[in-house]
Amino acid sequence: MEDSIMISSDSSVPFHNRAFSCIGSSRMGLALTREYQEELKYVQERLHFTHIRAHGLFCDDMGICRRRDGKLVFCFTYLDRVIDFYLSLGLRPFLELGFMPEALASGTQTVFVWKGNVTPPREQQEWAELVQATLRHLIDRYGAETAVQWPIEVWNEPNLDIFWSGADKDAYFTLFQTTFRAVQGVDSRFQVCGPAVCGGDDEVWIRDFLQYCREQGLAVDAITRHHYTIERPIKKGEYAYSALMDPEAGFASLRTTREIIDSFPEYRGLPVHLTEFNTSYTSRGVIHDTTLNAALLAQQLSRLGDVNESYSYWTFGDLFEEEGVPSALFHGGFGLVTQGCIPKPAFWTFAFYRQLRQVCRCRYRDEKCIVLERNGDFQGILWNTGSEERTVSVCVPCRAGQAYLLLKRLIAEGCGDPLKLWHDLGEPPYPSQEVLQLLRDAAVPLTSSERVTPEEKQQALVFRLPPCAVLFFTWKICPLVPDTGYEYETAISEGTK
Amino acid sequence: MEDSIMISSDSSVPFHNRAFSCIGSSRMGLALTREYQEELKYVQERLHFTHIRAHGLFCDDMGICRRRDGKLVFCFTYLDRVIDFYLSLGLRPFLELGFMPEALASGTQTVFVWKGNVTPPREQQEWAELVQATLRHLIDRYGAETAVQWPIEVWNEPNLDIFWSGADKDAYFTLFQTTFRAVQGVDSRFQVCGPAVCGGDDEVWIRDFLQYCREQGLAVDAITRHHYTIERPIKKGEYAYSALMDPEAGFASLRTTREIIDSFPEYRGLPVHLTEFNTSYTSRGVIHDTTLNAALLAQQLSRLGDVNESYSYWTFGDLFEEEGVPSALFHGGFGLVTQGCIPKPAFWTFAFYRQLRQVCRCRYRDEKCIVLERNGDFQGILWNTGSEERTVSVCVPCRAGQAYLLLKRLIAEGCGDPLKLWHDLGEPPYPSQEVLQLLRDAAVPLTSSERVTPEEKQQALVFRLPPCAVLFFTWKICPLVPDTGYEYETAISEGTK
Amino acid sequence: MEDSIMISSDSSVPFHNRAFSCIGSSRMGLALTREYQEELKYVQERLHFTHIRAHGLFCDDMGICRRRDGKLVFCFTYLDRVIDFYLSLGLRPFLELGFMPEALASGTQTVFVWKGNVTPPREQQEWAELVQATLRHLIDRYGAETAVQWPIEVWNEPNLDIFWSGADKDAYFTLFQTTFRAVQGVDSRFQVCGPAVCGGDDEVWIRDFLQYCREQGLAVDAITRHHYTIERPIKKGEYAYSALMDPEAGFASLRTTREIIDSFPEYRGLPVHLTEFNTSYTSRGVIHDTTLNAALLAQQLSRLGDVNESYSYWTFGDLFEEEGVPSALFHGGFGLVTQGCIPKPAFWTFAFYRQLRQVCRCRYRDEKCIVLERNGDFQGILWNTGSEERTVSVCVPCRAGQAYLLLKRLIAEGCGDPLKLWHDLGEPPYPSQEVLQLLRDAAVPLTSSERVTPEEKQQALVFRLPPCAVLFFTWKICPLVPDTGYEYETAISEGTK
Amino acid sequence: MEDSIMISSDSSVPFHNRAFSCIGSSRMGLALTREYQEELKYVQERLHFTHIRAHGLFCDDMGICRRRDGKLVFCFTYLDRVIDFYLSLGLRPFLELGFMPEALASGTQTVFVWKGNVTPPREQQEWAELVQATLRHLIDRYGAETAVQWPIEVWNEPNLDIFWSGADKDAYFTLFQTTFRAVQGVDSRFQVCGPAVCGGDDEVWIRDFLQYCREQGLAVDAITRHHYTIERPIKKGEYAYSALMDPEAGFASLRTTREIIDSFPEYRGLPVHLTEFNTSYTSRGVIHDTTLNAALLAQQLSRLGDVNESYSYWTFGDLFEEEGVPSALFHGGFGLVTQGCIPKPAFWTFAFYRQLRQVCRCRYRDEKCIVLERNGDFQGILWNTGSEERTVSVCVPCRAGQAYLLLKRLIAEGCGDPLKLWHDLGEPPYPSQEVLQLLRDAAVPLTSSERVTPEEKQQALVFRLPPCAVLFFTWKICPLVPDTGYEYETAISEGTK
Repeated sequence: MEDSIMISSDSSVPFHNRAFSCIGSSRMGLALTREYQEELKYVQERLHFTHIRAHGLFCDDMGICRRRDGKLVFCFTYLDRVIDFYLSLGLRPFLELGFMPEALASGTQTVFVWKGNVTPPREQQEWAELVQATLRHLIDRYGAETAVQWPIEVWNEPNLDIFWSGADKDAYFTLFQTTFRAVQGVDSRFQVCGPAVCGGDDEVWIRDFLQYCREQGLAVDAITRHHYTIERPIKKGEYAYSALMDPEAGFASLRTTREIIDSFPEYRGLPVHLTEFNTSYTSRGVIHDTTLNAALLAQQLSRLGDVNESYSYWTFGDLFEEEGVPSALFHGGFGLVTQGCIPKPAFWTFAFYRQLRQVCRCRYRDEKCIVLERNGDFQGILWNTGSEERTVSVCVPCRAGQAYLLLKRLIAEGCGDPLKLWHDLGEPPYPSQEVLQLLRDAAVPLTSSERVTPEEKQQALVFRLPPCAVLFFTWKICPLVPDTGYEYETAISEGTK
Repeated sequence: MEDSIMISSDSSVPFHNRAFSCIGSSRMGLALTREYQEELKYVQERLHFTHIRAHGLFCDDMGICRRRDGKLVFCFTYLDRVIDFYLSLGLRPFLELGFMPEALASGTQTVFVWKGNVTPPREQQEWAELVQATLRHLIDRYGAETAVQWPIEVWNEPNLDIFWSGADKDAYFTLFQTTFRAVQGVDSRFQVCGPAVCGGDDEVWIRDFLQYCREQGLAVDAITRHHYTIERPIKKGEYAYSALMDPEAGFASLRTTREIIDSFPEYRGLPVHLTEFNTSYTSRGVIHDTTLNAALLAQQLSRLGDVNESYSYWTFGDLFEEEGVPSALFHGGFGLVTQGCIPKPAFWTFAFYRQLRQVCRCRYRDEKCIVLERNGDFQGILWNTGSEERTVSVCVPCRAGQAYLLLKRLIAEGCGDPLKLWHDLGEPPYPSQEVLQLLRDAAVPLTSSERVTPEEKQQALVFRLPPCAVLFFTWKICPLVPDTGYEYETAISEGTK
Repeated sequence: MEDSIMISSDSSVPFHNRAFSCIGSSRMGLALTREYQEELKYVQERLHFTHIRAHGLFCDDMGICRRRDGKLVFCFTYLDRVIDFYLSLGLRPFLELGFMPEALASGTQTVFVWKGNVTPPREQQEWAELVQATLRHLIDRYGAETAVQWPIEVWNEPNLDIFWSGADKDAYFTLFQTTFRAVQGVDSRFQVCGPAVCGGDDEVWIRDFLQYCREQGLAVDAITRHHYTIERPIKKGEYAYSALMDPEAGFASLRTTREIIDSFPEYRGLPVHLTEFNTSYTSRGVIHDTTLNAALLAQQLSRLGDVNESYSYWTFGDLFEEEGVPSALFHGGFGLVTQGCIPKPAFWTFAFYRQLRQVCRCRYRDEKCIVLERNGDFQGILWNTGSEERTVSVCVPCRAGQAYLLLKRLIAEGCGDPLKLWHDLGEPPYPSQEVLQLLRDAAVPLTSSERVTPEEKQQALVFRLPPCAVLFFTWKICPLVPDTGYEYETAISEGTK
Repeated sequence: MEDSIMISSDSSVPFHNRAFSCIGSSRMGLALTREYQEELKYVQERLHFTHIRAHGLFCDDMGICRRRDGKLVFCFTYLDRVIDFYLSLGLRPFLELGFMPEALASGTQTVFVWKGNVTPPREQQEWAELVQATLRHLIDRYGAETAVQWPIEVWNEPNLDIFWSGADKDAYFTLFQTTFRAVQGVDSRFQVCGPAVCGGDDEVWIRDFLQYCREQGLAVDAITRHHYTIERPIKKGEYAYSALMDPEAGFASLRTTREIIDSFPEYRGLPVHLTEFNTSYTSRGVIHDTTLNAALLAQQLSRLGDVNESYSYWTFGDLFEEEGVPSALFHGGFGLVTQGCIPKPAFWTFAFYRQLRQVCRCRYRDEKCIVLERNGDFQGILWNTGSEERTVSVCVPCRAGQAYLLLKRLIAEGCGDPLKLWHDLGEPPYPSQEVLQLLRDAAVPLTSSERVTPEEKQQALVFRLPPCAVLFFTWKICPLVPDTGYEYETAISEGTK
């Protein structure tokens, strides 16, 4: 299969690269651990996300709220430690308020191995007290100017029974109102978002939510929802296998959300934050570790900015306990990196989009690639989500006689693919430091480069894309500036004569 | 070209893997810098050398010796800092005594941009005083049991006029005697070595040296010499290009040294330390950065242990000032890594020999490869120093029906070859952090793996070796131990159906 | 009050300084956090303990054991991370086996906010399987030679109902037998210890335990018990206040344990490990943060080695969740350091005993001080547990006319006393980094020094001990070795003339 | 001696706290070493200076300029490393252009052990080329917006023969003009300063310099000079002892500089930077390590902002080689910290002035103290440069019945005085890690605190100042906020009952 693409410097294609606005995290309590901190540091040094969002701010392992002699008592020792750490990496929290501290809960239903309580507060007033105490503490410690820049989302996926007792919509709306007014009571500059639904229930939840807000006079600041792109998985042991949704159906669903919002004159243009997205929505979704995931992600990142203000990959790392401590190094975790800071294929898709961040214009975008230009230099990403190799010829304008660099970085089976190597090593569950180092060495894209001096005003760049692959390229003017006397060609050939 | 090699578990081939006994360093004063320390730390974490040897212990930038009001004054502040650092990395110093502090020197001749004084001491007694003060200080700080394990070498390449004024043999022998007696006066357990010659003058220098020792009754502890394998280089700008010597001539020269020593009944079997070896002997030897250097090194490491007790690659890093601060990132420096801890091809040759260190037996060795066995598992290194691709078929015994891993790691043009990438990037002299990261990502071997279940009791492993390449392989029994429910093949294919 | 003590170099007093054989830790799951690791690193760099003991090895947050489809499944990902970390600090685990994973538990009774299950296993066989799987994994990863050096203790304080359902002695003995045989089944070199009782029940528990072992033919390797020295505390809020026991009663109780053991011919001389000791046994015992605690500890450390092989201070740090996340920086936690690595007074008592570790002889010991000698130099620790200032004159032999150093380091109210400073600062629960730095600066002993040249062969060293104080002193020959021209007295006075 | 000071909230006293605008550094080449970097990091984490100034940018150890085949060649490898490091600590370089690379020098005169060449360039044009190449490189790497904020000073102390061959004023003016025009040729936003004189020659040098600039039409951006406050020292060995100048004479000399500048209408108000100040101007000035130095510094910092835009303490650390590597830990080096990051008394004077940086108003200043207010809270620094103890009573307004904190931090003989402790330890030249730790522990101010509830609207705070001392105090409203049930008084007394 060969495609041919012609790039022109006249065309201008819409493209919003907001891939780095937010990143998902495992439960906030885990942010206290060293492994979490090392993984996040590794990711931030390369990818530089702006915000981070985690479940479990109010879960009891954060120790924020308990009852003593009948009275609520608050403690922010651990929260300070987490926020201090985020700030040290240049990250702002995207504060998801939940789940329910036992001291406040009206029931005992919990979610996950780590038992997040998903029942409404016994007393709305106590919840308001908790929210206000928390925000006031953050303002005390970090200053109001700083704290009010941290978005606030009310709960997580209340439209699912596992996350919100009975998926009770009215109860959620009540909680949202309580929260909204409590937050405003502290500082009206805080941005409060909801309803944090998983996708698919937009008509029922988002429309109703906005109607509720309108009726109650709540100036909600943004709409949040999630976006996963698989069909219901099949389980083998604890591992989840699943077919993919049609991606176009997914993008259509996102446009629907947009249209519902815009149908409310008061809320027209209200930002949408995808506070979670990925392919599979389980932390044993075996697809997450594959090069296919990287290719699918490349496709998503080329388009999610079309109707969404931000979209937060779920999650940066594999230290994640929702279904228990993983029994093996690779286990289908959500992470961009797995334990020991081994980057997975999806990590590199982000790294490639990071390269596209410099001021430049999009010249071409289709369902298989995206190409940008800056001052005659071109950068692009191509992906192949299919099971057959593809060859793509990208024809770019250039200056004849000028020296150019063509740099390619490829993720595909066997390159940038630590899963395969680990599998071939026998799938050792607890690899030694030596094996971890081998995996880390191998978890990089295959990078190749060449110097080209075009003879014409156009150059065809030909890329071979194996199945389930992502390829990044740079084509740029690149004069050779050797030090006096240094001759590369002689250097590499002298000894073999 | 295709070679075929048959491995048998019955054969036993001599092989001494002493590659990690010692490593060369730039001038000791540079050990105070952060870049040096980071490079050495990087190298040690992977390669774990035992000793380290540097010029310049007594050069004035170490601040050890000066004259105040006519009297010698000693100061060990910087020396402590260097030795503390070496010990923190598990390294012992191989103490090269030299060059001459200005306070003691009889002349003004210097070597290198950093001006090491290469003249004899004005007074032998003052040199003895310096040596004794230094050793006594080391014993005070680190304990005698520890310090006496640090070998002592007297001067560097006195058979060259640039390193020892007039290449005056008698003057050197006098210095050696002074030093030997001074050291013994402190603690007779110290091991004193000489004459530290560059190769080629063995008859004149090594034989005469041993005769001198015999006459003077000096129980010298080991013979030291160097081993470089190029012809005299041609200079372009400051860069050195050179043809290679016939490697067999080099190995023969090492055997000659051995034979000369063994011809003295008193010194028969005295250890030989190659306190420096490499291809080119200049710090602008462009060959050092190439994949050819890695291949040549693989050949050397397979044989240097035959007649030498240790052999010290010159040097671990590119922070090196003999010919001035380098004007560009890649500049033909000696280092296994260049600035910013980018491993060069030769680094990986060492990493591959590191893998061969576990208890095991050599089953095969020729001029192009070496193969070892442990309990039915095989590891080997193959190299190609020529300009044409070679294919090698290695036939190993195995158990039919068992699951095996075949792991290959390749260094060749364009893989594990940051020099080529840097060249293609235009040879930027001061790369940004981003470019350094790209180079670091690309400076790893191409690693590939497969699972094989042989049907016969022998398996032919076929390796393709491009020109100027080194390949490491592991062939070992490796059962698959998947977690319940985890199916790799399904995981990588599910989404593409 | 003034005491006068005469030291002679002829006397030799028994003293076993085993203070550094073991240190207590909060729940093992917390060893994954950065705060825990930083606190332990700080403590180890100064105090160098040999072993570490924690509750909670088998609690569910370590993720070691769960049931999947009816079958037990084991996972050692987190355990590896903890043990790797301990080893990196030179610490060996003292493995306390407990509490009960939910998957194995026969009941639902739990202890502490973090809900350790304290019921016996449903099936002894399953417990044996867990123990064996764990030890086999440790042997796989760290080698048998290493792992068998890690002592094993069966459960914690089974003689208390809160730690062992019903404080059921027979059930404990059964568990011990199961464990003992399971451990021996893996490697008979492992040392298995029990019954891990809190003090006071020796007749009932220790005698019966040994009888049981004798009857069952269990070659138990050591007896373990705990040692706390307060009366039952009074609670205000969650804080515990308590009177002290008579210390002599405590020491007597330890001798009783010894005597019971020695009354069994088979077990005569069996080592006793105090696997926990401190003053208060609650993690809100306000006394822990005081200078009195440091003084009481000084007394304990001078004598606990008399009949015990080891004694493990409970605990190194304040990151500790048994009664929930602390609401304030100082809260009566067990730790030698509190959050942010601020050393508490007791830390310095250990630091002082660390100084006494060098090879030397005890020359004097009473209930208020201890003095040791090495080659004419003396070091000692004095303490005052009372509420009135004491002056002590220690008369040591010396050489007339020699220059001596007298160095004193004092912990007392207002020096080395961050609790007082924090109190005076208003008891801020979440101090800023700046306040933490102020507290850290102030949390050091008051150090004073003088140079003395005795005129006689004896010198009286006079020490003023405020209430609740510990004082360390060094008296040693210390010649002045100034650099040529350096005159301290002139240096400090020149500018004021 | 007792002084009494009455503070009123009505008074407003001029005070400019510019102590942190710049800090001096040893030779720039040393910035490559780990010790330098660790010392500077320590200092920056506490004191947060804005700029840093070092000699030796163009000295040959920086490797910037050499001649190859007759042509100038530039290399910025090391400069990048230094500037990258400064920026990582939040520091901007204050670029002192000097000394002369050998490749450009017209003579061989050098200064210091490290041999900075102090002769004019052979060709002005080559110097201009060097300056321009350097600035262009900085702009390339760091961006013009950033680089132009780095002030540029032409040479160092050209009015001294040792720093500028013959102290040739005309030759300096020529160099200044060349430099000024070269810099402007790169980017006119750069600020160029001179004449960098040591104090005392203002009439001859500063007036003539400005006249020269006026004649040549050079819009010089600031005047730079130095400020040391001792008489000519007496040497013993290599150590320098010296009487102090009258401080008022020093301040008068600074006003003279100001007046000379303001006498030029074109240059009226031109900023003055003291690019160096300290007491003694030698790196073996024994006074630097004393508590007297801290007291004298306190006095300087209270007044240097009166007529100077910035004043740069010479220097942050003791790693300094002008007179060779120091032979002992304490040796009269300039540093705020000595080797191994031991803070000296002067460090704390800066730390105290750092506390005064928050927005607040000066209420009182005399020759012995300074007091500031913010919202009813007071902070002050008192110093005693004399040889007799002083008592000072500072009477501040307050609110009766409110709980206040009085915090005092004292530097005096024996507290915050590592020099005395090191002396008492015998002046060991190469202390072990253990001794360094002891010195570090002892190198903190004596901190004491108390809680006070005034009964009147005024409170007399009484401070005892030993000879050669600095005292910092805070007096502020500080309510006690104990956690429920926590009673400090009970906590510290319970055990002694």
